[in-house]
Amino acid sequence: MKFVIIGGDAAGMSAASRAKRTIPEMDVIVLEKTEDVSYSACGMPYNIADSGRDIDDLVVRSADVFRKKQGIDLFTGYRAETIDTKNCTVTGTMENREPFRFFYDRLLIATGGRPIIPDLPGFDQPGVVALKSLADGRRMKDYIQSNQVKKTVVIGMGYVGLEMAEALRERSIEVEMVKPGPDLLPWMPRELAAVVRQELDTNQVNLHLGCQIKGIEKTADQLHIVCNDRRLTADMVLVAIGIEPNSRLAADAGIVTGVGNAIAVNHKLQTSNVAVYAAGDCADAYHVVTGQKTWIPLALRANRAGWAVADNVCGEATRLEGVAGTAVFKVFNLEVARTGLSLEESHRYGFEPVDVTIKSRSRAHAHPGAETIWVHMIGDNKSGRLLGAQMVGREGVAHRINAAAVALHGAMSVASFSQTDLAYAPPFGPVWDPLLTAANQLLKKM
Amino acid sequence: MKFVIIGGDAAGMSAASRAKRTIPEMDVIVLEKTEDVSYSACGMPYNIADSGRDIDDLVVRSADVFRKKQGIDLFTGYRAETIDTKNCTVTGTMENREPFRFFYDRLLIATGGRPIIPDLPGFDQPGVVALKSLADGRRMKDYIQSNQVKKTVVIGMGYVGLEMAEALRERSIEVEMVKPGPDLLPWMPRELAAVVRQELDTNQVNLHLGCQIKGIEKTADQLHIVCNDRRLTADMVLVAIGIEPNSRLAADAGIVTGVGNAIAVNHKLQTSNVAVYAAGDCADAYHVVTGQKTWIPLALRANRAGWAVADNVCGEATRLEGVAGTAVFKVFNLEVARTGLSLEESHRYGFEPVDVTIKSRSRAHAHPGAETIWVHMIGDNKSGRLLGAQMVGREGVAHRINAAAVALHGAMSVASFSQTDLAYAPPFGPVWDPLLTAANQLLKKM
Repeated sequence: MKFVIIGGDAAGMSAASRAKRTIPEMDVIVLEKTEDVSYSACGMPYNIADSGRDIDDLVVRSADVFRKKQGIDLFTGYRAETIDTKNCTVTGTMENREPFRFFYDRLLIATGGRPIIPDLPGFDQPGVVALKSLADGRRMKDYIQSNQVKKTVVIGMGYVGLEMAEALRERSIEVEMVKPGPDLLPWMPRELAAVVRQELDTNQVNLHLGCQIKGIEKTADQLHIVCNDRRLTADMVLVAIGIEPNSRLAADAGIVTGVGNAIAVNHKLQTSNVAVYAAGDCADAYHVVTGQKTWIPLALRANRAGWAVADNVCGEATRLEGVAGTAVFKVFNLEVARTGLSLEESHRYGFEPVDVTIKSRSRAHAHPGAETIWVHMIGDNKSGRLLGAQMVGREGVAHRINAAAVALHGAMSVASFSQTDLAYAPPFGPVWDPLLTAANQLLKKM
Repeated sequence: MKFVIIGGDAAGMSAASRAKRTIPEMDVIVLEKTEDVSYSACGMPYNIADSGRDIDDLVVRSADVFRKKQGIDLFTGYRAETIDTKNCTVTGTMENREPFRFFYDRLLIATGGRPIIPDLPGFDQPGVVALKSLADGRRMKDYIQSNQVKKTVVIGMGYVGLEMAEALRERSIEVEMVKPGPDLLPWMPRELAAVVRQELDTNQVNLHLGCQIKGIEKTADQLHIVCNDRRLTADMVLVAIGIEPNSRLAADAGIVTGVGNAIAVNHKLQTSNVAVYAAGDCADAYHVVTGQKTWIPLALRANRAGWAVADNVCGEATRLEGVAGTAVFKVFNLEVARTGLSLEESHRYGFEPVDVTIKSRSRAHAHPGAETIWVHMIGDNKSGRLLGAQMVGREGVAHRINAAAVALHGAMSVASFSQTDLAYAPPFGPVWDPLLTAANQLLKKM
């Protein structure tokens, strides 16, 4: 059996390792267009923050380990260009421009995503960078060093943009952020977003909201981000307006794509062609709250889906439940977390959402060092179900959100969730956990 | 309507406040034998640790606020001695030894628990202290101060004993701990308990396990704990071998008690007498995993049960789900948490438990400052259900346990739990949350 995998990052290498472990005699072939496999992409901002650390610290397992210790046929520098689902082949070109062709019995497309770069003048010049692959991180780190970058403009204010703002400030680089939309973190209630904004202010990150970007111009050593109403100047511009799935290869082969142009997969991670699987940032998933397809490219799902594909390929029928869209990120000294639907999404999917925003504390009454925790919680007035939760605070947020995430997986009602027996000790929270206080308040409105 | 409440701590005052808020014209009468109401009992070790803080910092709301602002008839120094369920009266004596009698339409027994004091010679002398009420805390703090306590022996190694060991070391008081049983934290696997033991060693807390205690002797200024094979000397002895429910008053009135001698209540918190409720440390509860009665006296349950009693008394039929026995405590720089059944309990309740212990990390691969997290997880081989989880680590334990607790409330299988979408970012954990790694490993054994 030949199991061919296109893409050697989280989903691809998880699948390769697991398949080879389960059936050692299987031919497991991985085609990776870059030279990097199996690295912690999410760790890049924290690595970039520290000029003394090598970007290769983020490599979890080297290509050689996969090849020699695990017996995986890992081909780096191999760019897949065509899938022929009729003849079960993948063709492409190597770095030296030699063509290659592989036959497969089962194929996994794990081509990931790529940063969206606006089709505007000047986005293709040196110093305008994005961050997705380890090579991107390496380039950015080199650029900062060799150009002695003092000032950066970040276009976009999502997770990556905010994490990078912190990383750059850590290196004493000035940071301005700009986006066309009027709101920071529009999926959050304004009260929570204001806390994040305050944290950015405190750390001298300037936000420019509602700015239409026209292009980037270069003069001598400086880049100028030209907006409708202002010009921002920087030594480096980070484009962080989001990613899109690398699904073109699949689409060109007649494989169905759907929400967000991601490759459509069933609960077994099969595409519209039963011999072809897709996993990771290029593939969609079911949402546990809506039951409908969604595209939320996150690392845990990629790893988990890689394993599930391997199990299915190895004959152990495995069905993946959906995602809840649980995410956490750090913004300087703040923890920001979410799970499930936002208020806007709740409306969009036909629920009758009721929401509440509460303030609680990270430690008990009279326990020193308590910080404020903000919780936003949403329930469905029709069914009583919990739909989503969001939290912001300086401590006690990152892991707390998981309790709500598990409740979403269990399709729990707000009433049931409000009765859960959560841990209490004075150093770690109030008697009523902030999530329970939110659930209690929400219940009163439902 | 006269709603009489015996006991003015967590359960009693929660019920009183909520009933009065719901039906302001209701006569809400609270009989509290001490002078203290509504304080954070769990905060006492942290207050005692700091000689500069007043124990009254732990008072959440003063008696006067309950009386004047909330209109509750709060009688402190009133000791209830008899309940006559036929005539619906509570009688007792005031501090000045005057008798009192109250009629009730609905009665809540919220008499709490009391520390178990062994019936051995010398346990009744000055310097032998226990910690349950605010008065206990006040006395202990005064005793440490006025006797310039330099060395303490703690009898018992449960939550309170361990928290107090930390508090006393914080004040540079020498601490030795002693118990008859052979194991520290016998409900934990030895690998996790060893981590706690190491932390105690590091902080110069000496443990004496397997010591039969014969009594306490006094010579001049010192107390001597006489064991079968050794004598331990101290300026103060803290007895922390557990608590027992104050259920005698109820039992004498013919109200049924059950597991652990706690007052038996149904899902509405009603005792065997429908006009009489019980809540807090004196009452039992259903366990969400076994469906059977259990007695786990913890603060959140007391508050929640107090509210539920008020709702039922006010005519809003309210049913409380069970408890999962979720708990967390701090032992110096360690967080120790549990939820659900231990391995021994899983066997005892007729499950077919399979368990696993794993080591993971508190932060991502290559993220600086990661600490080890140990997870013990138990599943039922017959049903596939998750039965319990325990964790130990220097960070990331206290709130993580809640994800497992919610899964227990949802009667989730280990397989379903292993598929939950938990939050990931490098500063807060590995891609696979330690709980997911444990669930994945456990699944392989089931």
